Amino acid sequence: MDALEAVRKRYSFRGSYKNTPVPRDDLKKILEAGLDAPSGCNKQTTSLIALDDPELLKEITSLVKKNGFNGVNPPAGICVLTQKVPGYADKYFYVQDYSAAIENMLLAITALGYASCWIEGQVTESEETQERIAKLLQVPAGYTVVGYLPVGVAETEGRHAERKAFRERAWFNKFDG
Amino acid sequence: MDALEAVRKRYSFRGSYKNTPVPRDDLKKILEAGLDAPSGCNKQTTSLIALDDPELLKEITSLVKKNGFNGVNPPAGICVLTQKVPGYADKYFYVQDYSAAIENMLLAITALGYASCWIEGQVTESEETQERIAKLLQVPAGYTVVGYLPVGVAETEGRHAERKAFRERAWFNKFDG
Repeated sequence: MDALEAVRKRYSFRGSYKNTPVPRDDLKKILEAGLDAPSGCNKQTTSLIALDDPELLKEITSLVKKNGFNGVNPPAGICVLTQKVPGYADKYFYVQDYSAAIENMLLAITALGYASCWIEGQVTESEETQERIAKLLQVPAGYTVVGYLPVGVAETEGRHAERKAFRERAWFNKFDG
Repeated sequence: MDALEAVRKRYSFRGSYKNTPVPRDDLKKILEAGLDAPSGCNKQTTSLIALDDPELLKEITSLVKKNGFNGVNPPAGICVLTQKVPGYADKYFYVQDYSAAIENMLLAITALGYASCWIEGQVTESEETQERIAKLLQVPAGYTVVGYLPVGVAETEGRHAERKAFRERAWFNKFDG
């Protein structure tokens, strides 16, 4: 799929997934897209764990979902980890790093014909959730669980979020220009 | 260009740009890619100003560059603004929002045959720099300048940053699995 088309087509899917498995080859392409993202001072603070074990998926989905709002029964998922180390001096870029990695993965997921949703608040708003996921995935100290992406084929297509008009958010050579 | 190819080909270019102008149509496509990025709770906190005015470009390039390290004489650029408003309750996602927008733009820039570099620390490490850019672009209160992307055709190809091996950063079903 064309890059600009993938950018346009990506959206946050919050419905039911088909039980069609996601082949490891596709998960690997998605992970590689995440690792190809830039990082502040090339610190490569983002690490990723792809999930296709049904028991693990069930446990993690139940930990992150609220009222089934963020995807029902995804056949795969990706857990996003960060190392909170500075880029230089006291400047931290790890949020930027994992956000760029997540966006790359969402585009790869879209390009490969799957749906997903960036789930972050439901992971990070509770340290207990973060720690339970870390324990399940045997994540060592020094890494923090910051996000989760379900991956699968959408059962029915969802809707793109409504957006402000271009002229309200982008201009040439000066604000509101 | 294919989406996964754009992800692989994107890299941080820090050399000289050709003086070939970047047509407004291409800048618009790049801005649209930025605005198409997801945002926490759809708050759309990111705004963008594309630059193709030579005088403005010269002033802004001189403000953000250190020893010419981040691109010499780009014929265009994009200034990234954020509104620091919460996604919900006391949870802020504006860094995630502008990072996803920047990554989308870097991929669009790559897909359209241009080079760029995510410039952030050199903008945000000095409030004076942020304020001088804001003043030049007539950015009102409530918006903060957080990044800058030069845009143009690379005079000579740069190098991709070296990366850790896949197995050091990505696994299946458990950490280091």
